[in-house]
Amino acid sequence: MTSVMKAVVFARKDHIEIREKRIPDVGPNDALLKITTICGTDIHIVKGDYPVKPGLTIGHEPVGVIEKLGSAVTGYAEGQRVIAGAICPNFNSYAAQDGAPSQDGSYLVASGMCGCHGYRATAGWRFGNMIDGAQAEYLLVPDAQANLAPVPDSLSDEQVLMCPDIMSTGFKGAENANIRIGDTVAVFAQGPIGLCAAAGARLLGASTVIGADGNAQRMEISRSWGADIVLNFHDCDVVEEILRLTDGKEVNSAIEALGQQSTFESALRVLKPGGTLSSLGVYSSDLKIPVSAFAAGLGDHRINTALCPGGKERMRRLMSVLESGRLDLAKMVTRRYALDQIADAYDLFANQRDNVLKVAIRPS
Amino acid sequence: MTSVMKAVVFARKDHIEIREKRIPDVGPNDALLKITTICGTDIHIVKGDYPVKPGLTIGHEPVGVIEKLGSAVTGYAEGQRVIAGAICPNFNSYAAQDGAPSQDGSYLVASGMCGCHGYRATAGWRFGNMIDGAQAEYLLVPDAQANLAPVPDSLSDEQVLMCPDIMSTGFKGAENANIRIGDTVAVFAQGPIGLCAAAGARLLGASTVIGADGNAQRMEISRSWGADIVLNFHDCDVVEEILRLTDGKEVNSAIEALGQQSTFESALRVLKPGGTLSSLGVYSSDLKIPVSAFAAGLGDHRINTALCPGGKERMRRLMSVLESGRLDLAKMVTRRYALDQIADAYDLFANQRDNVLKVAIRPS
Amino acid sequence: MTSVMKAVVFARKDHIEIREKRIPDVGPNDALLKITTICGTDIHIVKGDYPVKPGLTIGHEPVGVIEKLGSAVTGYAEGQRVIAGAICPNFNSYAAQDGAPSQDGSYLVASGMCGCHGYRATAGWRFGNMIDGAQAEYLLVPDAQANLAPVPDSLSDEQVLMCPDIMSTGFKGAENANIRIGDTVAVFAQGPIGLCAAAGARLLGASTVIGADGNAQRMEISRSWGADIVLNFHDCDVVEEILRLTDGKEVNSAIEALGQQSTFESALRVLKPGGTLSSLGVYSSDLKIPVSAFAAGLGDHRINTALCPGGKERMRRLMSVLESGRLDLAKMVTRRYALDQIADAYDLFANQRDNVLKVAIRPS
Amino acid sequence: MTSVMKAVVFARKDHIEIREKRIPDVGPNDALLKITTICGTDIHIVKGDYPVKPGLTIGHEPVGVIEKLGSAVTGYAEGQRVIAGAICPNFNSYAAQDGAPSQDGSYLVASGMCGCHGYRATAGWRFGNMIDGAQAEYLLVPDAQANLAPVPDSLSDEQVLMCPDIMSTGFKGAENANIRIGDTVAVFAQGPIGLCAAAGARLLGASTVIGADGNAQRMEISRSWGADIVLNFHDCDVVEEILRLTDGKEVNSAIEALGQQSTFESALRVLKPGGTLSSLGVYSSDLKIPVSAFAAGLGDHRINTALCPGGKERMRRLMSVLESGRLDLAKMVTRRYALDQIADAYDLFANQRDNVLKVAIRPS
Repeated sequence: MTSVMKAVVFARKDHIEIREKRIPDVGPNDALLKITTICGTDIHIVKGDYPVKPGLTIGHEPVGVIEKLGSAVTGYAEGQRVIAGAICPNFNSYAAQDGAPSQDGSYLVASGMCGCHGYRATAGWRFGNMIDGAQAEYLLVPDAQANLAPVPDSLSDEQVLMCPDIMSTGFKGAENANIRIGDTVAVFAQGPIGLCAAAGARLLGASTVIGADGNAQRMEISRSWGADIVLNFHDCDVVEEILRLTDGKEVNSAIEALGQQSTFESALRVLKPGGTLSSLGVYSSDLKIPVSAFAAGLGDHRINTALCPGGKERMRRLMSVLESGRLDLAKMVTRRYALDQIADAYDLFANQRDNVLKVAIRPS
Repeated sequence: MTSVMKAVVFARKDHIEIREKRIPDVGPNDALLKITTICGTDIHIVKGDYPVKPGLTIGHEPVGVIEKLGSAVTGYAEGQRVIAGAICPNFNSYAAQDGAPSQDGSYLVASGMCGCHGYRATAGWRFGNMIDGAQAEYLLVPDAQANLAPVPDSLSDEQVLMCPDIMSTGFKGAENANIRIGDTVAVFAQGPIGLCAAAGARLLGASTVIGADGNAQRMEISRSWGADIVLNFHDCDVVEEILRLTDGKEVNSAIEALGQQSTFESALRVLKPGGTLSSLGVYSSDLKIPVSAFAAGLGDHRINTALCPGGKERMRRLMSVLESGRLDLAKMVTRRYALDQIADAYDLFANQRDNVLKVAIRPS
Repeated sequence: MTSVMKAVVFARKDHIEIREKRIPDVGPNDALLKITTICGTDIHIVKGDYPVKPGLTIGHEPVGVIEKLGSAVTGYAEGQRVIAGAICPNFNSYAAQDGAPSQDGSYLVASGMCGCHGYRATAGWRFGNMIDGAQAEYLLVPDAQANLAPVPDSLSDEQVLMCPDIMSTGFKGAENANIRIGDTVAVFAQGPIGLCAAAGARLLGASTVIGADGNAQRMEISRSWGADIVLNFHDCDVVEEILRLTDGKEVNSAIEALGQQSTFESALRVLKPGGTLSSLGVYSSDLKIPVSAFAAGLGDHRINTALCPGGKERMRRLMSVLESGRLDLAKMVTRRYALDQIADAYDLFANQRDNVLKVAIRPS
Repeated sequence: MTSVMKAVVFARKDHIEIREKRIPDVGPNDALLKITTICGTDIHIVKGDYPVKPGLTIGHEPVGVIEKLGSAVTGYAEGQRVIAGAICPNFNSYAAQDGAPSQDGSYLVASGMCGCHGYRATAGWRFGNMIDGAQAEYLLVPDAQANLAPVPDSLSDEQVLMCPDIMSTGFKGAENANIRIGDTVAVFAQGPIGLCAAAGARLLGASTVIGADGNAQRMEISRSWGADIVLNFHDCDVVEEILRLTDGKEVNSAIEALGQQSTFESALRVLKPGGTLSSLGVYSSDLKIPVSAFAAGLGDHRINTALCPGGKERMRRLMSVLESGRLDLAKMVTRRYALDQIADAYDLFANQRDNVLKVAIRPS
C-alpha cells in the first residue's frame, strides 16, 4: 500500500479538483476504507450553496473494503466490505444518548453551519463537511465501531449505494410522518429522496401514496416504486387536485422533499387538521407559514424536520429491506464513471442531462 | 322554570348586549345547564378579531347545574353540578376516532374559520362560535353524554372555572412539548395560558422551567406556580439570556403562548436541535420561520400546534389535578361580577386594569 | 317490512337454533341493518367456551344495508351498504376518550366477562355478547353514528367481511408490536387472525416476517400474503429454528395468535431484549412466564394485549387498504351457506373439514 | 500513586473479602476513577442469589474523581468529580443504536445471565457482574466517553449516590408506566427503588400516587416524597383497598418494585383495562399471569419491564432533578462506613437493623 491517494476536493465555488493527498493515519477508534463505489452528486457543495473549506475532500456515501482497523475497534475484519452512513454520529455524545445522534458530536464545540448557536445542529455530518469525505481512493471513518455496517454478499455495491444518504433520508421522511395503516400521504417532489420517501410511506402502511413532480421519468419510477397516484405539477394545480382526490378531506401526512417555499406551502395546504408535515428539504432562505393553511395555529398540526440518520444499526436495517426484495434501489444509478472522470459526472448531473438520477463513481 | 333567559350576545364589533332569548329545547343527546359561574374574558370576539355571527351568545367556560337531560343521556342526574369543555367535540366523528376530537364534527360541513378547506379545522369549538355560548342563564350542551363532567364537592366553581379552556389549553401545550424528566423548558408569555403551560411543564418532570413575560404580577405568579426562573423581556434579551443560562445548550422544549411572530421566533431561536416547539398562540397573520433558527430544516426539530382538548375524561383528569392539591387555579380569578355588570367586566379586562387576570361572572 | 325475522340463537352448549324474533325498535341513536352477508364461525360461543345468555342471537361481523336510521343519526342514508365493527364502542365513554374504546361502555356497569372487576374489560363487545348479534335477517346497531362505515362500491360483501373482526384484530396485533422498518417479526399460528397479523406486519415495514403453523393450506396462504418464511411446527422446533435463522439475534417482535401457553411461551423465547410480544389470543387458563425467557424481568421486554378495535374510522381505514389492492381477503372465504343451512356451516367449521378457513352466510 | 489497591471481592456464597488488587491499566477509551463514595448494599450478590465469579470486585454505584483518562477520551479533566451508571453501556453497539443500550455489548458474545439466548440480555451491566466493580479504591470505567457524568459542585457525594442505580431504575419504572397528567398510579413495595418510582410517578404528573409496603419507616418516607396514599399490606387487602379507593375504576398504571409473584399479581389485579404494568423487580422464579386479572388477554393491557438505564446523559438528567430541588435523595443514606468496615455494613443491611435504607461506603 502506497502512502498517497487521489481525492476529489472542493477548490472554490463551481470548481472541484482531483488532488493527491496523504492516506490518513488510523487512530484507535478509526477505520480506513478502500472505496469501491461512491455516489457522485454533491452538487450543492460544488456550487458553493453549502460552504466548506477549500481543499476538503467531498463525498459522503461510501461503499468500500476495510483496509485497516484501529486498535480499539472490534467485531470487524480487514477485507470486509462495508458501508457507513453519510451522517457518521459519535454515539457517545450527549445528543446521541438523548435521541438526536445526527445533531452533535459535543457540547463543547462551536457551531458549524448554524453559527448563531453554541450547540451544533447537523454536527453528525462529518464526511465532506468537517472532515475529508468519500470521493477518494481511501476514507478514514471515525467512531468506526458505531458506523461500519457489513454488506451482505447478496447485495451489490450499487444496490447499497443509496443506503448511506438517499434511502436513509427518504425513509426518515416517511418515519417522521406518523403514518398509520390506511393513511393518505402526499410527497412533494420525486427526486431520489422523494422517491425513497414515497416508497417508505407505502412500506409503512399508507394505502394511498400521492407523488408530485414535473419530470416524466421520475413520475414513472414513482409509480413503479410505491405511489398510487402521481401528479404532474405542470399539468394541474397539485393542491386543488389533492383536495379533489380526497373529497376535501385532505391528507394525513405530507412529505416535503425539495426544500422550497412552494413545496413546503403546498404540503401544508393539503394537510388535514391533526396531520403531520414531514420536511426533508434543505432550505436556503426563510420559510413562510401562511396563517390560513395553518388554521391560525389551532389545527393540531405537527411539523417534523430531519437530518439523515446514520449508524451501523440504521444501515443494517436499510440493507435488510433491500435483501428482502421489498425495494430495488440499483435502478436509481443511471450512469457510472471512473474517479478520473468525475468532472464529467458533475457536469452531467448539474445539467440534469440524459435523465440522470444518480451517478456511481468507481475509484479503481 | 320560565321560558326566557338573559344572554350576552355579540352585537357588532366592540359591542356586546344583554338580550332575552328563549331557553332552548333539549334534544335526545343534549343537556341544559343552569349556569352558576362563567369566565368573562372573550375579548377577541368582542373586538371582532375572530368573527362570529351577530346575535350569537358568547362564552365557552361553563360551570353549571344540570337543569334537564335529553332522553338518550344516561349516567347523570338533574341537579348535578358539572363543567363542559370550551371545545365540545362530537366523539362519534371520524376526526375524533382518528385522534383529533377538537378538529371536526363532520366531513360534510364546509369550513368555518379556515374557509379554504373542505375539512373543518377547529370544528370542535362550538360554544360562542357555531352555537350559542355560556355567558347566559342557561346553556344547551350538545353531545352531553361525552361532554358533561361532574364537579367533585371538594372543588368550588372558581377552582374549576379554568378547566374548560385555560388549564386544558396550557396543559396541552406542555403535553405537546415532549417533555422528559430533567428537561429545560422555556415558556414565552405568562398570561393565564402561559402560566398553566409552565405549571404543566413542571408537572411533567421538567427540572428547569423558564418563564418569560413583561408583567411583574404575572412573573410573580409564574414563580409561585412552577417556573424556576422568570425573565422580564423589558430587562434583557430573552434569547441571549436563555442561551447564557443553558451554557449555549439551549432548551429541550419551548412553548409559545401568545400568538405573535416575536414569541414564535424566540421559541425557535432557543430550541436545541432535536427539540420541540409547542405552539399555543392564535396567530392572526402569516408566520416566518428564520432559516438560521431552523438549521436549514436539518435540526430534527418538531413544531406542534394544538386546539384546547375537551371531553368529560379530559375535564375529569384536570379536576383530579386540582383535587390532589398539585395546583390551585382559583387565585387566577381576580374579580367577580354579576351577569348584568358584564360590560364593566369586559371594560376592565380589555384595558387590563387592576392587574386583572381572569374575571368570574355569576348569572344569578 | 314484516315485524319478525329469523335469527340464529345460542340455545345451550353445543346447540344453536334458528328462531323467529321481533325486529327491534330503532331508538334515536340506533340503526337497523338488513344483513346481506355475515361470517359464520363463532365456534367458541356455540361450544360454550365463552358463556352467553341462552336465547341471545350470535354473530358479530355484519355486512348489510341500512333499513332504518334513528332520529339523531346523521350523515347516512337508508339503503346505503355498510359494515360495523365486531366491537361496537360507545365513543362517548370515559374509556373511549381515554384511548381504550373497546374496553368500556360505562364506569357504572358491573363487569361481564371479568367478574372480579368493577370496571368492564371488553365491554365494547356487544353483538352476540351483551346484545343480539348479526346472524339474523336484521341487526340493531347501537351508537350508529360512531359505528356505521359505508362500503365503497368497488368492494364486494365478501371482500369486506373480515374487516369487522379478523382483519381489525390481526392488524391490531401488528400495530401493537412496535414494528419499525427492517424488523424481523415472528407470528405464532396462521389461522385467519394470524394470517392478517403477518400481512399487517409486512404492511408496517417488517423486512422479515416468519409465520409458524402446522396446516399446509394456511402455510401456503401465509406465504402468498406476507410471510417471507413459514415454519411447520410439526417439522421443526420453531424456537430453535428462529434462533438459527436470526443467527441467535432473535426477533424484534413476536405476535401470538392462538391463545395457548405454548405459543405465548414460544413468542417470548424468540424475543430479543428490548423487543415486543404482541398477544392476540383469548386465553382460557392462567399463563406462565418462564423466568429464563423473561431475562428475570430485566430484558426491557414489552407485552401488549388487545381486543379488536372498532368504530367507523377504523373500518374506513381497513377498507381503504383493501380498495388500494394492498391485500385481498376475499380468498379467506372458502364456503358459502344460506342462513337456514347455518347448522351445516358450524358443523363444517367445528370439524375443520374441506380446509375451511372462513364461511360466509347469506340471510337472503 | 501506588500500583495496588484494596477491593471488596465476592469470595464465595455469603462471604466477601477485602483483597489487594493491581490498579488496572487504562486503555484508550477507559478512565480510572478514585472512588470517594459508594453504595454498600449488593446483598443479592453476596448471598449468591445472582452468581458472579469468585474474586470479582463487587459494587456498581460509583462516585469518584478522575485519576487518569484514556488517550481517546476527550471533554473531561483529571481531578474532575464524576459518576457513572450502574449499567455502563457500550453506546456503539447495535442494541444501543436500536434503543436498548442496557441490553447488549455485542451480537457476538454468548449470554451471561440468560444462558438460553445467543443474544445478551442485561449485557450493559458490567460493574461487579462481568468486570471488576466499584467497591474498591479505584475503578476502571470502560467506554468512558459515554459513561462519565460530571457532578455539579452544588451536589454532595451522598446526594448523587443513588443516581447510578436506585434513582435511574425507579424513575425508569415511572417512565415505563405511560403516565399522563391526572393518572392514578399504584406502586407495590416502597424500598429504595419503589420510593424512587413513586417520586417519579408524581414528577410525571400522576395526581394520585398510591404506595404499598409493610414497613412503617418506608411508608413515612413514601408519604413525604410523593405518595398521596400509603397502604400497609399488614393492615388491609391492598387490592381490595385500591379498588375501593378508586370506586372500582382501578388504576391507570401499576408499578411492581419487589420481584415477587404476589406484588406482580396484585399490580395486575388493580390495573384498568388499557392500563400499564411497569415491572422493575428481579424475578427469581417463573411468574404466573392469572387469566381473570388479565381479561383473558383481551384487556388492552401493557406489561413493560426494564433494566436500569445508564449513560452520561441519563446521569446528567437525574442530577438536574436533584439540583433543581425537586427531590432530595440524601436522606436515603442512613449509615456511613469506611471500606475496611464493609463487612459490618453488609451485616447491618442483610439483617435490616436500625431501619437501614442505604449505606454509604467511603474508601478513604
